[in-house]
Amino acid sequence: MRQGSIERPALQKDYQAPGLDFETPPEKSLPMPDGQEFQPDPAFSAGSVAAAEWPLCHVRLQLDGRFPWLILLPRRAGLVEVEDLTAAERAQLIEETVRAGRVVRALGDAWGRPVEKLNVAALGNVTRQLHLHVVGRHGDDGLWPDPVWGRGAATPLVDPARALEIVRAG
Amino acid sequence: MRQGSIERPALQKDYQAPGLDFETPPEKSLPMPDGQEFQPDPAFSAGSVAAAEWPLCHVRLQLDGRFPWLILLPRRAGLVEVEDLTAAERAQLIEETVRAGRVVRALGDAWGRPVEKLNVAALGNVTRQLHLHVVGRHGDDGLWPDPVWGRGAATPLVDPARALEIVRAG
Repeated sequence: MRQGSIERPALQKDYQAPGLDFETPPEKSLPMPDGQEFQPDPAFSAGSVAAAEWPLCHVRLQLDGRFPWLILLPRRAGLVEVEDLTAAERAQLIEETVRAGRVVRALGDAWGRPVEKLNVAALGNVTRQLHLHVVGRHGDDGLWPDPVWGRGAATPLVDPARALEIVRAG
Repeated sequence: MRQGSIERPALQKDYQAPGLDFETPPEKSLPMPDGQEFQPDPAFSAGSVAAAEWPLCHVRLQLDGRFPWLILLPRRAGLVEVEDLTAAERAQLIEETVRAGRVVRALGDAWGRPVEKLNVAALGNVTRQLHLHVVGRHGDDGLWPDPVWGRGAATPLVDPARALEIVRAG
């Protein structure tokens, strides 16, 4: 199957990446009006962990020490494009994007690499479930000024438990 | 000067790319409360043309036949990040993003390459002035599923005047 094909794997329960023993935040996968339940696509579990639940979005911390990086997934089943949200949800999404930017800056500060520029993107060519990347960039981050997606390999987070604390405080 | 440095070139009046003789839409560079006037960074003129003025954004058509592609610039001076807008402006920006998606789909249809996935991004590592890309992607577009930024060379639009008509009708 070609990457990015319309077909998607069957949804499974989200799980923690192996080897990380921090506590899972309470999930709020409420039943939706159409009877479907939101679940993050299992593809996200390969590179990120569940970090927080905000009013609209399931928030994940990308496990990549190169960049402070959050992924926001609006908690509704079946979303692919921003246009699939209601206008009220879209307004909330962009507010949570700003909040994610503040968290990403706090992570960059904690790592001694203050964020110089935020990169915000909803791509979804590989994993179609609607998600928004909020990435903190720095002129010395190794990929600057190129986009981060599909470039190079992630490095481990130095202190993932502390990073999760920062996300949950944000 | 390093690409993406904080320093930016002095703003100049926007101009049409040479060789394109379609009409320039009326500009709405209204004086802003802080007395500064919005002008698109001249860097945008290298690859795109002014196409429309929406309630919040100056809309540009990217001159790249590989992808239907709009760039939205909120018409306020001095913007860099999404957080620099007010909440009301952010809500408007995401509505204009959805509108841009519809236009990009219409362009893809006109070119016989219906859009399969929208890519939306605010990066700004090279040109810092706040701008949002809305790009229509297709599994056969040559770069799929990679992001489009900084990859390969643009090809000419087959019918730029018709493309501008579609943007202005959207």
